[in-house]
Amino acid sequence: MTRDIPLRPLDAAAFAPFGEVLEVSGPPDLLINQDLCGRHHDRARLDQQGGRLGISLFDATPRALPYELAMVERHPLGSQAFLPMHQNPWLVIVASDEAGRPGTPIAFRAAPGQGINFARGTWHGVLTPLAAPGLFAVVDRIAPAGEAKSANLEEVWFDTPWSIVEP
Amino acid sequence: MTRDIPLRPLDAAAFAPFGEVLEVSGPPDLLINQDLCGRHHDRARLDQQGGRLGISLFDATPRALPYELAMVERHPLGSQAFLPMHQNPWLVIVASDEAGRPGTPIAFRAAPGQGINFARGTWHGVLTPLAAPGLFAVVDRIAPAGEAKSANLEEVWFDTPWSIVEP
Repeated sequence: MTRDIPLRPLDAAAFAPFGEVLEVSGPPDLLINQDLCGRHHDRARLDQQGGRLGISLFDATPRALPYELAMVERHPLGSQAFLPMHQNPWLVIVASDEAGRPGTPIAFRAAPGQGINFARGTWHGVLTPLAAPGLFAVVDRIAPAGEAKSANLEEVWFDTPWSIVEP
Repeated sequence: MTRDIPLRPLDAAAFAPFGEVLEVSGPPDLLINQDLCGRHHDRARLDQQGGRLGISLFDATPRALPYELAMVERHPLGSQAFLPMHQNPWLVIVASDEAGRPGTPIAFRAAPGQGINFARGTWHGVLTPLAAPGLFAVVDRIAPAGEAKSANLEEVWFDTPWSIVEP
């Protein structure tokens, strides 16, 4: 059995079971600033239990294809949005949940102008830029002081890694 | 009296009275993902009264220098973060408050990798990219259904516009 997972373009409909693609698509919900700016309003389903929302910056090392996917993780207490601060390609890897374990991963390549918000509890790969700078703004749950890291992080390591490959 | 305002580089210390510069500076607060990602943690002071936080996308028309600044606005009920989804230059224009009116504006040019969060109630210019695409993720207050737009928007038009110019 092959462990290859071919990349597919990131697409709102295909990603819908896992969260939202944050992108300009269709006409804006409203025009602001003397019609010089389109506002595409409230596109992420932010969802936190305990803690509060915050904005952090992630600065990640670029990876290359084929990419060896050894693990996925999920955050049971909150959604997590990745917003690229560049127009470089990056990987969005998710898996459905099968009785508390991740199913076969799905790998998307994000196009310029696409961010994502993972729904709370979604199995996903770590942030994986394909070029430098691997800089992202991240909107996620800020834990209360003293909370154990494990409260909002569950990791699964695969017995055999998957290989994310060009389609 | 000149109405010219020379641009200055966006700098966290100079911007501090108006909010936070969201950028990678200094070592990360923690290393995650097998040390392949630095997390610069919780860098924005998010501040909302009523409503809730959301992520929207703003798609703004690029402007050119010199830029005529005819108005500034503020949001009394919430902070507002602008996160560029590109590495293009853009303007960050703010003004201190002087008895309910904006003082002389200050104009910064953001460098690649810099976002900002305006503190609640900060006078600021509208989103002003200097190149296409003028695409930004915006984290701000989502109003409750039925709330008047004026509840969280105050605009001041200058009798004579300011001119934002190269330094």
